[in-house]
Amino acid sequence: MNRVFNFGAGPAMLPTAVMEKAQQEFLNFNGMGASVIEISHRSKEFDAIINQADELLIELANIPKNYKILYVHGGAQMQFSAIPMNLMSRLPCRKAAYIESGNFAKLANKEASRYGIVDIVGTSEATNYDRIPAFDSSELADDYSYFHITSNNTIYGTRFQQFPDMGNIPLVADMTSEFLSRSLNIEKFGVIFAGLQKNLGPPGLALVIIREDLLEHASPETPSLLNYKTYAEKHSLANTNNTFAIYMMKLVLEWLKEQGGVSALESQNEAKADLLYKLIDQSGFYQGTAQTEHRSTMNVTFNLENNDLVSKFVDQALDQGLYALKGHRNVGGIRASIYNAMPIAGCEALAQFMREFERRNG
Amino acid sequence: MNRVFNFGAGPAMLPTAVMEKAQQEFLNFNGMGASVIEISHRSKEFDAIINQADELLIELANIPKNYKILYVHGGAQMQFSAIPMNLMSRLPCRKAAYIESGNFAKLANKEASRYGIVDIVGTSEATNYDRIPAFDSSELADDYSYFHITSNNTIYGTRFQQFPDMGNIPLVADMTSEFLSRSLNIEKFGVIFAGLQKNLGPPGLALVIIREDLLEHASPETPSLLNYKTYAEKHSLANTNNTFAIYMMKLVLEWLKEQGGVSALESQNEAKADLLYKLIDQSGFYQGTAQTEHRSTMNVTFNLENNDLVSKFVDQALDQGLYALKGHRNVGGIRASIYNAMPIAGCEALAQFMREFERRNG
Repeated sequence: MNRVFNFGAGPAMLPTAVMEKAQQEFLNFNGMGASVIEISHRSKEFDAIINQADELLIELANIPKNYKILYVHGGAQMQFSAIPMNLMSRLPCRKAAYIESGNFAKLANKEASRYGIVDIVGTSEATNYDRIPAFDSSELADDYSYFHITSNNTIYGTRFQQFPDMGNIPLVADMTSEFLSRSLNIEKFGVIFAGLQKNLGPPGLALVIIREDLLEHASPETPSLLNYKTYAEKHSLANTNNTFAIYMMKLVLEWLKEQGGVSALESQNEAKADLLYKLIDQSGFYQGTAQTEHRSTMNVTFNLENNDLVSKFVDQALDQGLYALKGHRNVGGIRASIYNAMPIAGCEALAQFMREFERRNG
Repeated sequence: MNRVFNFGAGPAMLPTAVMEKAQQEFLNFNGMGASVIEISHRSKEFDAIINQADELLIELANIPKNYKILYVHGGAQMQFSAIPMNLMSRLPCRKAAYIESGNFAKLANKEASRYGIVDIVGTSEATNYDRIPAFDSSELADDYSYFHITSNNTIYGTRFQQFPDMGNIPLVADMTSEFLSRSLNIEKFGVIFAGLQKNLGPPGLALVIIREDLLEHASPETPSLLNYKTYAEKHSLANTNNTFAIYMMKLVLEWLKEQGGVSALESQNEAKADLLYKLIDQSGFYQGTAQTEHRSTMNVTFNLENNDLVSKFVDQALDQGLYALKGHRNVGGIRASIYNAMPIAGCEALAQFMREFERRNG
């Protein structure tokens, strides 16, 4: 059987070339007669992998020298605790500002409120998170330990088109569903974190990119393996890390470099999203759920007239090899997640299916 | 190239049959046209995997109904924090007893001391952890929130031959390097935890088996994803878990069942260890480093007359396809880790090499 076009929101499809390479060497990595998942995280062979991952990240994301790259247990959601545990104590009032642009942003601020004072300085809950909330960073007090945003909202299909300039307040961004899909100026951020399972690799691990001076503020109750300083000091190998995820990410990064790097992927991602959004906008049959000017290039969300049509759409799409298009229950309708690994051919196949489905049911 | 016999302490070798099955379906799980690492943790297909893992564990380890099975982020070492965060507050004096039988036991008690009072009620540090420390459980105060042991000490090659009867004090056991290698009466334990990467699967996840009543004592500062109750309530899927590790563990458990279950593996493990220990005891050339009556069946540690001989042994063994025999720096010498997945043929090949090496160098 051919591989489907997998529109799942995450764990998401990985580039087929990456999957084939991993499969080919799965029992015998590097001629060792053992799998990459069977060798020590302290072996010279794994050391080469993690070093290559670092180097590729520095190159692809243009990470400045005063930032550390960490591979942290538990995925992005574990960082919802780690961020306040590491950063709340940066200033004595232990206060953080959060923008609530969706479900994960809400989970993050609820978790943070257990470790300090959380101010929600913008929310779009009233419109079911169909937009990035408006807020004026110049009116913000400057005694916040950090300022937290979710840069792309997987469930609602929105993203920050620009990032706020926060002055002295470290900007912390959950970029799980878009890191390395667009060009960034890393220096605008204090911390970027991303679960791997959308754009970077398999689930169970988070990438954390943190400005060095922010490693010094962990609260005493922080578990050693949630203290970012532990990771910075031990090159993320204080204990046995998720070596498979780091290895797979390294393969994904190599692939990304071969594709021309982040700017090439960014153009392709915009073309993929445009193709679907144009179809939606020209149709009276499909209704986009995110406000036009806040649309994500990673998660395209739209609805149909009723739930029966949605079910029919999802089922018939699957018959065409278009997998996992059902929207999240918080929004309903359809969600097409089109991360870096989704080829343009996948979006074209979806667009063609959408036109045919409209013709048959419109 | 053939697969080597991999004596690494962890990440360790997995059964070749398991590796081949995972390889074969790596790009196309269950005819879905997508990999198991590319599908949602909330899909019906992954639900079947995690349910099967539960059922196999219940059957193989004979887990009573009043225990919960959890798959927790971060491996065993993350549990060094999670255990005190979940259990210290069980009693008002927030006090725990630890047996210090090795390096990981020491790391565990150091981490716990950040969350309450830790009493080291037995240690074998003075003899470089060559034995399980003697202690008298009947003399222990009963106001401990829990009592922590490391059941098998990977670095030093020792294990608890019997487990203490702790009465009302919950016995917490780090069984990372031996869970499912020997028959257990689970009811003796309050909590058993094990990183997957030795006997159970790839690294990055811990299995936690906990008596239900112990889920109710987490301290308020416990991160949601280190609170065992979160895992119990959400079937370990409060967030995107390490689906690959759970899937691989399920395959390992199926393999274990095919081998005849834990008691069959236990007999084989004893035969494998006996083969090496007898050779060591009959030789004046190899010196066992663990006290005879405390020897592990999982990690066989021994030394040679000098470091040059050790290096020569490790190098020449590798030429024979016997991989990763170098002992941990805390003990030196040689360590042969012979977990469930190591076939008897691997131990026979090692024994033969040891006899030849002795003949040439003795």
